[in-house]
Amino acid sequence: MDLNADLGEGFGIWRLGDDEALLELVTSANVACGFHGGDPSTMRRVCAGAAERGVAIGAQVGYRDLAGFGRRHIAYGFAELRDEVTYQLGALDGFCRLFRTRVRYLKPHGALYHAAASDEAQAAAVVAAVGAYDRELPVLCAPGSVLAQLAVGAGLRVVAEGFADRNYLPNGSLVPRTAANALVTDPEEVAARAVRMATERTVVAVDGTVIPLQVESICVHGDSPGAVRSAGMVRATLIDAGITPKPFA
Amino acid sequence: MDLNADLGEGFGIWRLGDDEALLELVTSANVACGFHGGDPSTMRRVCAGAAERGVAIGAQVGYRDLAGFGRRHIAYGFAELRDEVTYQLGALDGFCRLFRTRVRYLKPHGALYHAAASDEAQAAAVVAAVGAYDRELPVLCAPGSVLAQLAVGAGLRVVAEGFADRNYLPNGSLVPRTAANALVTDPEEVAARAVRMATERTVVAVDGTVIPLQVESICVHGDSPGAVRSAGMVRATLIDAGITPKPFA
Amino acid sequence: MDLNADLGEGFGIWRLGDDEALLELVTSANVACGFHGGDPSTMRRVCAGAAERGVAIGAQVGYRDLAGFGRRHIAYGFAELRDEVTYQLGALDGFCRLFRTRVRYLKPHGALYHAAASDEAQAAAVVAAVGAYDRELPVLCAPGSVLAQLAVGAGLRVVAEGFADRNYLPNGSLVPRTAANALVTDPEEVAARAVRMATERTVVAVDGTVIPLQVESICVHGDSPGAVRSAGMVRATLIDAGITPKPFA
Amino acid sequence: MDLNADLGEGFGIWRLGDDEALLELVTSANVACGFHGGDPSTMRRVCAGAAERGVAIGAQVGYRDLAGFGRRHIAYGFAELRDEVTYQLGALDGFCRLFRTRVRYLKPHGALYHAAASDEAQAAAVVAAVGAYDRELPVLCAPGSVLAQLAVGAGLRVVAEGFADRNYLPNGSLVPRTAANALVTDPEEVAARAVRMATERTVVAVDGTVIPLQVESICVHGDSPGAVRSAGMVRATLIDAGITPKPFA
Repeated sequence: MDLNADLGEGFGIWRLGDDEALLELVTSANVACGFHGGDPSTMRRVCAGAAERGVAIGAQVGYRDLAGFGRRHIAYGFAELRDEVTYQLGALDGFCRLFRTRVRYLKPHGALYHAAASDEAQAAAVVAAVGAYDRELPVLCAPGSVLAQLAVGAGLRVVAEGFADRNYLPNGSLVPRTAANALVTDPEEVAARAVRMATERTVVAVDGTVIPLQVESICVHGDSPGAVRSAGMVRATLIDAGITPKPFA
Repeated sequence: MDLNADLGEGFGIWRLGDDEALLELVTSANVACGFHGGDPSTMRRVCAGAAERGVAIGAQVGYRDLAGFGRRHIAYGFAELRDEVTYQLGALDGFCRLFRTRVRYLKPHGALYHAAASDEAQAAAVVAAVGAYDRELPVLCAPGSVLAQLAVGAGLRVVAEGFADRNYLPNGSLVPRTAANALVTDPEEVAARAVRMATERTVVAVDGTVIPLQVESICVHGDSPGAVRSAGMVRATLIDAGITPKPFA
Repeated sequence: MDLNADLGEGFGIWRLGDDEALLELVTSANVACGFHGGDPSTMRRVCAGAAERGVAIGAQVGYRDLAGFGRRHIAYGFAELRDEVTYQLGALDGFCRLFRTRVRYLKPHGALYHAAASDEAQAAAVVAAVGAYDRELPVLCAPGSVLAQLAVGAGLRVVAEGFADRNYLPNGSLVPRTAANALVTDPEEVAARAVRMATERTVVAVDGTVIPLQVESICVHGDSPGAVRSAGMVRATLIDAGITPKPFA
Repeated sequence: MDLNADLGEGFGIWRLGDDEALLELVTSANVACGFHGGDPSTMRRVCAGAAERGVAIGAQVGYRDLAGFGRRHIAYGFAELRDEVTYQLGALDGFCRLFRTRVRYLKPHGALYHAAASDEAQAAAVVAAVGAYDRELPVLCAPGSVLAQLAVGAGLRVVAEGFADRNYLPNGSLVPRTAANALVTDPEEVAARAVRMATERTVVAVDGTVIPLQVESICVHGDSPGAVRSAGMVRATLIDAGITPKPFA
C-alpha cells in the first residue's frame, strides 16, 4: 500500500505543513508546482528530500490561484487548462532531473481535483496533458471519478486513492466537507480504517454499511501537528499489520 | 550564422511582437517562460511552430516580474535565482517534449541579461542552473560578459551573440540604450552590419573604428512591424551574401 | 445619454485598446483596477486624462486573474469577493483623489459582470462592497440582472446600459457571443441603434421585434481601430440627432 | 510613546505573525497592502480590529513581490514606484473607510524601507506619493534616513522610530542583520531599552556608548510566539514606568 500526502505547499516566506516530517512517513509526495502553492526553492528542497529517501515524486497540479490556494473553481477552457498542467508538470520534472529521478505520477489539487472528478472538459484537459507528456505517467485520483474514466479510456494508468481520515457515504463517495461528520478525527480510528482499506479492501460508511474500496494509495495530511501524528500512526499501524508502505509508482 | 529573436512574450490576452512572422525568419527562438512574459498556451504554440520549422528553441529566462516585464533589476539571492531559472527551463522543456524536441540553449532576458553580464552571483546562479540541468546546454550571451566567463569556467558551451541593430563603442560594448545613437535604424545598414559580422567577424564602432566581434548568432527584434521588416532584410541579405542562416545548436 | 467604455486595460508593457482615443469619445470611463488588467501607472494616466476632460471615472472591477483577463468564472466566496471589490474600489479612488475627483460608479468586468447578472452570492458581494464603501455610488449593469435587482433592494442607484454593437434576443437579453450574429459590425447600423436607444428607448431584436430598452448609458468598445471608429460614429450620430453625450454620474 | 508593529502579512491560506495578539499590544498597526503580503480579506479584518481598539492604521507599502515578501531590492523607476505606493495607499484607505477611520500614516516595508533610507529616487517616489495623496499623512521611518530628509523637505510630517530589539552602532545606525549581534533577544533587556528610548531619549550602542535617539515610536515584532511575548513585556514595562503607549497619529 502506498501513502501519499501533499508537500511543498508553502510559498516564499509562508510555510504550510511539515514537509520534513511527512517525507519520513509517506511513500509518495504530491509536490505543489507553483500555481496554487509551492515555489521553485521549495520544489527543489522537497524533490531533494524525496529522492534521498526513495519517496516517489508526483506533480500536484492546480489552478493558477495563489490567493485562493487553488480551492476555488475556475472555468478554464480545455486548451488553457491542458497547457497549464503541462507547464507545471515540466517545471517539476526539471527539479526531479537534478536528483536523478523524475515525476512518477500526477494528482490534481483542490478545486481541480473536484472539477476533474465530474467535469468532462477539465478531466479531458488533465488527461490530454498527461497523455501527451508521457503515456506511462499514472494519474492518482478518486476511484470512479470522470478523471479516472477518461484516463483509462486514453490508455493511462489510474491509481485510486482512499482517505482514511474522511467519512464515506454508502454510495462510496466522501461525506462533503461542509457536513459535521466529514472528518474522522480519532488517530486510532483513522489508522484502523487505513488497515481495513489495505487488507480487506473495504471502508465502513457513515451508516455502518461495509462498502468495497479498491485503492492502491491512502492519502494522509500533514497541515497540522495533529495531522502529522495521525499520519505517523497510520504508517505504524500498517507496518504492525504486516503491510509495508511502498510507492505504487 | 544563427539568427535569434525573442518570441512568445505576450501574456494572456496581451500580445507583443509578431511570433508567426519571426518564426519564418529566425533559426533560434528565445521563448519566454512565463516569469517576465509568456504563458503556457503561448509557449506551446511557439514550440509547435518552431519544431515544425526546424527553429531551435531556447529558454528565455527572466525575473519573476510580469509588471516590469523583467526589465527591472531584482536583488535575488543565489539559490532563489538558480531555482527560478531551473523552474523556467523545466517548464519550457515540457512543451518541447510534446513536439519531439527539447530546449537547445538558454538566454537570459532583460535585467537578468544585464545583471548576469556583470554580477558574479547572478551569473553564477544561471550557470549553476544550466550545469545541473544539462551540461550540454549552451548559454547564449554577450561575448566577454561575466556570464560567458563563468559558463566557460564551468565547462558549459558559450555562444556569443552580436546585435546588428545596436551601435558599439570602440571597446566592444554596446552604446547604452539611453544614448541618442544607441540604435541603428536604417534596415539596409542593419543588414550590412549583419553581413559584416558574419563574414569579416567585425563591427564598425560609433567612432569608425573597425573592431573584431566573434559571434555565432545575431540577435534581431520583432516587436514592431519595422523590426520584423528589418529582420527580414537581415535574413535576405545574409542569404544573398552566401551565408545560410542555421541554428548554432 | 452617457457613453461608457473600458479603459486602462493594459498591464505593464502590454497595451490593449486606445485609451487616448476613447477619452475623446466617451463620457464615462470604466477604468480597470489591476486585478484582471490595469496597473498603477496606467490607472493614474487614465484618471488624469479623464479628470482633465470631465469624463466620469468608474471602477471596472474584476476577478484576480491576469492570465485569464477576468473572463473565466471563479467560484469566489461572498466575503472574498466583497473584499476584492472593496480593494479595487479604494485603489482607483486613490488615483482619482490625485486629480481632485473620485470614483463615480462601479461596473463589473468580464466573468464577474456575467456572474453578477445571475448569481445571487456574487451579485450580493458586489452590492455589499459598494454599499459599505459609499451608498451614493451607482452600479452600472445590465437592466433586469440579479445585480440590478439586489442593488435596488439595497438602496443603491442602478444605471442600466445598452450595447449598440450587440444583437438582442426578443426577450431583451443579448445574443450570446458564441452565436454567429452576436455582433453588429456595420458602424452606421451601430450608430443608428444607439440613436434609437437614446430617443425611442427601444432596440430591434434579431427577429425584427421592437423591444423596449430603458438605458441611461450605451457601452462602446475600443479594443481595435475599427471599434474606435465605430464609437466615434456613435458619438457623432448622437450629436447630429440632438443628443449631447454626458455622464450619468 | 507609540508602539508600532507589522500586521496583516499573511496571504490567502498562509498566515504570518499573530495579528490578534499584536492588536492588543500596539498603538499603531502597519498593515500590509497586498503587494509583498496581505490580501483584501486580511486587510479588512485587521482594519476592523484596529478601528475597534483605537489602534492607528498605517499603510505598510512594499514592492510588488509576493515571492520575495518585498525583501529583495527592485530597481523601480520613480513614476512606477510612486504609482504603486499610491495604489496600495488607496486600497488600504478603502478598508479604513468601512470602519469610519482612515490611513493615519505610511511606513515602507522591507527592501523599500532600506532603499528609501539611502536611495534618493526611491525615497522621492514615496514622498511624491504621500504628498499628492494627503499632505497631512506622516511618514514613519528611520531618523536621519534620506526618506526622512526628503519628506521634511516636502513639508510632510516625519515620525522617527526606534528598534528596542536591535543593536545600534555608535553612529546611530543599526547593526546589520547579517552580524551575530544584530538582535537583542532577552525580553527584559528589550523592554529596558524601550523604556530608555521613551524616557531618556537614548540607546546604548554595542560598544557601550550612550547615544541620543529621538523617536516617537518603537517598533516591535510579532512573527513568533517569542516576539509577541517580548512585545508584551515592552508594553507592560513602559506602563510600569508611567509611560502610556498611545498612537502618534
